[in-house]
Amino acid sequence: MAMNAPRGTVDILPKDVKAWQYVEDQIKEICNRYHYSEIRTPVFEHTEVYQRGVGDTTDIVQKEMYTFEDRGGRSLTLRPEGTAGVARAYVQNKLYGEASQPVKLYYFAEMFRYERPQKGRMRQLNQFGVEVLGSADPAVDAEVIDLAMTVYRSLGLTSLKLIINSLGDKESRADHRQALIDHFTPHKEELCADCQVRLEQNPLRVLDCKKDREHPAMSSSPSILDYLNDESKIYFEDVKAYLDSMGIEYVVDPTLVRGLDYYNHTAFEIMSDAEGFGAITTLAGGGRYNGMVEEFGGPSTPAIGFGMGLERLLMALDAEGIEIPDDDELDCYVVAVGKEPEQAAVRLVHELRTNGIQVDKDYQQRKMKAQLKAADRYRAKYVLILGEDELSQGTVTVKEMATGEQKVLPKEELLETLHGKLTGGK
Amino acid sequence: MAMNAPRGTVDILPKDVKAWQYVEDQIKEICNRYHYSEIRTPVFEHTEVYQRGVGDTTDIVQKEMYTFEDRGGRSLTLRPEGTAGVARAYVQNKLYGEASQPVKLYYFAEMFRYERPQKGRMRQLNQFGVEVLGSADPAVDAEVIDLAMTVYRSLGLTSLKLIINSLGDKESRADHRQALIDHFTPHKEELCADCQVRLEQNPLRVLDCKKDREHPAMSSSPSILDYLNDESKIYFEDVKAYLDSMGIEYVVDPTLVRGLDYYNHTAFEIMSDAEGFGAITTLAGGGRYNGMVEEFGGPSTPAIGFGMGLERLLMALDAEGIEIPDDDELDCYVVAVGKEPEQAAVRLVHELRTNGIQVDKDYQQRKMKAQLKAADRYRAKYVLILGEDELSQGTVTVKEMATGEQKVLPKEELLETLHGKLTGGK
Repeated sequence: MAMNAPRGTVDILPKDVKAWQYVEDQIKEICNRYHYSEIRTPVFEHTEVYQRGVGDTTDIVQKEMYTFEDRGGRSLTLRPEGTAGVARAYVQNKLYGEASQPVKLYYFAEMFRYERPQKGRMRQLNQFGVEVLGSADPAVDAEVIDLAMTVYRSLGLTSLKLIINSLGDKESRADHRQALIDHFTPHKEELCADCQVRLEQNPLRVLDCKKDREHPAMSSSPSILDYLNDESKIYFEDVKAYLDSMGIEYVVDPTLVRGLDYYNHTAFEIMSDAEGFGAITTLAGGGRYNGMVEEFGGPSTPAIGFGMGLERLLMALDAEGIEIPDDDELDCYVVAVGKEPEQAAVRLVHELRTNGIQVDKDYQQRKMKAQLKAADRYRAKYVLILGEDELSQGTVTVKEMATGEQKVLPKEELLETLHGKLTGGK
Repeated sequence: MAMNAPRGTVDILPKDVKAWQYVEDQIKEICNRYHYSEIRTPVFEHTEVYQRGVGDTTDIVQKEMYTFEDRGGRSLTLRPEGTAGVARAYVQNKLYGEASQPVKLYYFAEMFRYERPQKGRMRQLNQFGVEVLGSADPAVDAEVIDLAMTVYRSLGLTSLKLIINSLGDKESRADHRQALIDHFTPHKEELCADCQVRLEQNPLRVLDCKKDREHPAMSSSPSILDYLNDESKIYFEDVKAYLDSMGIEYVVDPTLVRGLDYYNHTAFEIMSDAEGFGAITTLAGGGRYNGMVEEFGGPSTPAIGFGMGLERLLMALDAEGIEIPDDDELDCYVVAVGKEPEQAAVRLVHELRTNGIQVDKDYQQRKMKAQLKAADRYRAKYVLILGEDELSQGTVTVKEMATGEQKVLPKEELLETLHGKLTGGK
């Protein structure tokens, strides 16, 4: 058991990695089109980064982090989410001082959460995410949402649901917070132990509780939308107008509060409503976090971003029956039997690779027939046979697998012929 | 201080990430040409994987690992090297049972070593690596070395030195081990404390000691090459013959033993001898590890691989003055001032992106002049101006930045014109 991958983690094997590579390539192309640049932050941060950035009262920080001391006694935490590290990097590297603002970033990163593993919930998971720091323009909120939707749509997903909400600015949130306290306090004893604490520390998160979901006070709880001040209202209207103008459909859900403490104004989630997708339907979530950069010692900086689970994205593709293009063929496979032909084959393979041709050979001392079988298994387009005859005559036998056509070529002509065949279409 | 990245780790920022992407793309293309497939294993493993796979007596396991207990009391370790995890995955996923052998794998992965950070030595570092499992053919050893050299050469590096050695098979190693014990025991008291322990546990590693490097017994220590049995000798001769036939130059260095316990037969290192590269000259290292898969409960399986530090690869490119191609331009930048034009600009940007064009706009409510400056900074090829006039007439002004040429186009013609210009060469 100790020799298996740790619980909640998996290996991505060659047979599965093609789908990952395809999805990642598509996403990178979209990020380039939207003019976002990649950033890579360390796998672990000082624990304080998440305590301050994600928030001490969140489930993530309180229950789910992989926190440990290094050999120098520092408390480190494996990245549980992507935003805090990027915001920390923005401050530490003084990206706020660059002329080009906002700074539009994307990342691919492993996340680590100590949760009970289940379908669509791993302890090590992979996320793609986007962060835009330095702009308070509602057009950026719309752009970020558009980018996320474009990723899903361009991969072929159609059963998608976008929900949005506004959590308002500081003032609006404070008013709403008080309204929540006033609303839930008469029912305090009926709520779960966690919610009793939440009511003191962060009453917004009572709305997220899975245990108290059915409590009658939930459905009648005060909506944040009724507490938005004028500025927050206008901001939200602008975001919606931009989404409308892009033709992006959404549902406003005033109960959407997201698990993290740092959000304000726009919050959004994208879910799959494909049949058979499973119980956990959220594909991506994000929102605005105008206070975080300041929390890390940087200047007051508006910012927005999202995180998108890649395991769940692949699950959604699967649920909608979308196939990943399969281009898993091999250009050439060299077949050779016997000591001398095998040595010549190693040279030939080296020469072809040096000239840009994809090629493989046998390394198992297999017989001719088994080597041809291997070529089939690898879906080789051309088999190059180097036998005793070919060796003595300085030739190579080229077999085109699609047609079965076979030709003996002088070795000098091989490279040119293959280049012509492999790039020239035929 | 707590708000900085942890000591020995860095952020890879957009200005630097292009070099990483370029190098990674080149490497992936080479791996594809050599017919290697990607594998991804978790960032952490059960600690036992490294104790057994890397070896209890190595510096890595004894001094440098990030080991911690998770919330369930499991001892986990952040990946300090790439081979053990891949071998564990090969066993757990029964890759030895697949028809296509050997299994040829590559990976890009972060490694974690608690060492004193210095130039070219980070606590979180990035490696590219290759593992071939399931073949005992010396042609595979040569192929793996060839692949590593091809990576460096194709990136333009020329100041490279390849050293190889054979550690022999089990029998040869045992004979050599006894010879080392006999040789060093009379000097035991003169060796450092670590080496006194090594002499008992793993005398081969005495040869690696930095403290005892100058001890007179070092230069006269018995060479492994004198203890190779016939089979091991022939194997090593075959590897060298294959390298010769590929025109790959190397130096045989019988003191090359590598830090890890699991090697046998071929061991190799590639160093940079570029001036100004720094004190740590090793770029990549690898070797055969025929015993590891069995150690993990799999069938007896020959295997070979290497790990290549990507930070050091980038340092070597820098030391040799090799520039990464810079294609950091932007296709289009939309300039708009005022509420209505800005809203129209958001729509236009969305439309162009949807049609595959890379485009950005201002999100800072900047004035016209500042927006044009931003377009310059982003090295935009085309600036699209949406003013009040254009809006009322349904046109867009297109300015080609290279020539300064400016044209007013009906909005319907914009897309086609841009597609023509951006793909048509002009």
